[in-house]
Amino acid sequence: MKGIRVVDLTSVLSGPYCTWLLASMGADVIKVENPNGDSARTTSPFCDDISIYFASINRNKRSICLDLKSKEGKSALHALLATADVLVENMRPGVRNRLGCSDEDLKRINPKLVRASITGFGQEGSLSDRPAYDIIVQAMSGMMSINGSAGGAATRVGFSIGDIAAALFTTIGIIERLYSRDAQNAPDLAPVDISMLACQWACMENAYARYFNAGIIAEPLGSRHPSLTPFEPYPTADYDIVIGIGGAKDWPRLCEALGRPDMAIDPRFVEDDERLKNRDILNDILGSHLRTHSSEYWLSRLIEFQIPCSAVNNIETLANSDLAQEYRAFSDVVTNTGSIQKYVRSPITLEGMIEKAAPELGEHSEEILRELGFTGSDIKALSGTSKSNNNHEKSKITINTAPA
Amino acid sequence: MKGIRVVDLTSVLSGPYCTWLLASMGADVIKVENPNGDSARTTSPFCDDISIYFASINRNKRSICLDLKSKEGKSALHALLATADVLVENMRPGVRNRLGCSDEDLKRINPKLVRASITGFGQEGSLSDRPAYDIIVQAMSGMMSINGSAGGAATRVGFSIGDIAAALFTTIGIIERLYSRDAQNAPDLAPVDISMLACQWACMENAYARYFNAGIIAEPLGSRHPSLTPFEPYPTADYDIVIGIGGAKDWPRLCEALGRPDMAIDPRFVEDDERLKNRDILNDILGSHLRTHSSEYWLSRLIEFQIPCSAVNNIETLANSDLAQEYRAFSDVVTNTGSIQKYVRSPITLEGMIEKAAPELGEHSEEILRELGFTGSDIKALSGTSKSNNNHEKSKITINTAPA
Repeated sequence: MKGIRVVDLTSVLSGPYCTWLLASMGADVIKVENPNGDSARTTSPFCDDISIYFASINRNKRSICLDLKSKEGKSALHALLATADVLVENMRPGVRNRLGCSDEDLKRINPKLVRASITGFGQEGSLSDRPAYDIIVQAMSGMMSINGSAGGAATRVGFSIGDIAAALFTTIGIIERLYSRDAQNAPDLAPVDISMLACQWACMENAYARYFNAGIIAEPLGSRHPSLTPFEPYPTADYDIVIGIGGAKDWPRLCEALGRPDMAIDPRFVEDDERLKNRDILNDILGSHLRTHSSEYWLSRLIEFQIPCSAVNNIETLANSDLAQEYRAFSDVVTNTGSIQKYVRSPITLEGMIEKAAPELGEHSEEILRELGFTGSDIKALSGTSKSNNNHEKSKITINTAPA
Repeated sequence: MKGIRVVDLTSVLSGPYCTWLLASMGADVIKVENPNGDSARTTSPFCDDISIYFASINRNKRSICLDLKSKEGKSALHALLATADVLVENMRPGVRNRLGCSDEDLKRINPKLVRASITGFGQEGSLSDRPAYDIIVQAMSGMMSINGSAGGAATRVGFSIGDIAAALFTTIGIIERLYSRDAQNAPDLAPVDISMLACQWACMENAYARYFNAGIIAEPLGSRHPSLTPFEPYPTADYDIVIGIGGAKDWPRLCEALGRPDMAIDPRFVEDDERLKNRDILNDILGSHLRTHSSEYWLSRLIEFQIPCSAVNNIETLANSDLAQEYRAFSDVVTNTGSIQKYVRSPITLEGMIEKAAPELGEHSEEILRELGFTGSDIKALSGTSKSNNNHEKSKITINTAPA
């Protein structure tokens, strides 16, 4: 996405995650913030005075601070949009209009601009006015109802799938529109209008397909597979491991890996459906057998026999694993104060990219305004909010403003 | 993506989901299957003899059946690839080479082809040979360790986030490469090499950011918010509802909506941190208060006061809701036998698109071979596997082959 300029009017999670991905592919992402800044800047915990929540998904962007309530601020935004390829925003429907950025305004400012919006429920319809958080769309969509312990309560998915799915679909929509515009010369580009709710449905296509076409109501299943076993976590002498087999063809090989050839011919376990019927008995046997050795021992046996398996890692064990090192899961990012912070690398990061820390509020205001042709006193007037204001503001706030 | 031809050598979930999205944006997706077909075709449950699992994510594609072990089948595949823009595959690393589709082969066959691969752990590295299912990457990545009941066991996320995140990132990577190729005239396109594992890390960027930069090890939290309350499900006289507020600024408005202005000035609840400290007391009070009326009553009050809220829907309630109807969550798809099935509509579906049912195995073999310039006896020899063979095969199999 080198050479693509993205004007980023987003805050908190879904929008910034989308523009983080665009930046990781080389786009010039300009984050436009009001003097208060993206509210995620005040989300705890902090490291070196920077919100970790904010820093993770705002890397490799530039920040311009504009008072978007003022006429001058709006004009500067419009000047910026005139040079841009993409506008992304995740404000409530209608708010954009108050910035002089209605669909009609934008067509006038920059007829070739790709416009993308992320909201809880889309730009139109009976819910468009409603505020939404991740947990709201997880609850409304049914997502919570298929997650959690077997037979237990509907449980929020432990990361913000409501926001992140929307971010991924928006990224797809934006690049698709750019392709239409620049490779196919499409005359008129419909805006990308992403609803967090609709993205949840898309993640649950299988659950809804089974309901509509087979009458099955999916429910929380814990870590079990609906129709295969072994296919879940098991205890060992130390840590839990997951073992998963594709069906009867893998069963004898698994028994060999476990040193239990007797089980391969046990009539309770030979056929897939019998094994499923006798899952509790099987799990008791497997559990006591696996407890005789360490997870390391069993994993090396299972790997040797090409049985899909893994330790059930937690954040700490994975973060410190050779695996994370080898696969370059994380990037070192040098902050403005010279310290090094560590964040997840996007799986679609440009080869060899050196990541830049998330910008301070308005860090690039002057630079960007100069690029736009503003000079001297105009720049001074427009970039009223300095870095020190920002830090001062931040240090007073220690409580989250609804990140999840 | 109209005018883009995608050769789809994928099976089961991650790859087909990616090409489902490409097809929903108008790409011509040609699913190439061996005579046995995508193994997902045999995944239960079935409706009208079609695997629902398969049907959901293979809509709007064409199927060509080729014996890829034969010289002729490989030649036909290569002829097809010569006409294509994109190849997507999710075979284990190296398998592609045996089809005469190594990186070098593909450069010779079609130097402008965008190549994308999805595997558990990427094309290179110490794990590249390992088989993976969704639950394996969920366990290995730490995803399970941040999902589940508060204080409870690591729990698999209730939908296949391991596969679906990979599908979304692959889709992004593919369109980005097409953009580079067709809009930026990039001379050499690196393959899109997506690892399911790396996509899980990307979904968990916040958990890893908090570990590395603040020493916090995220764990299953149930449906609670780590630092805000109310921000979880609550009981009512009938169904649970989720209420979420952004902080102290919303608290008095929530108390008003609930008809409990006394709570707005209760010193245990006024400040965010006090409310968090007294969460159990607060939940007891809220619980008994909310149980006095139905979910419908409370939701209408909360919505009136602009408090983010929702019923905790399940698959059935959502499927039959006015909401789903209004937002066109689902598409009716007419099958080859004339019956109508219902599936989730992709959130990035082309406006006005009429969805086509997933193809039978080899349904378009002749049509596609003819397009490629094959004639008469060649076509007959190549399209050996007829529809009836496929149905016959399928009806004998009733057990899953590891879909999740």
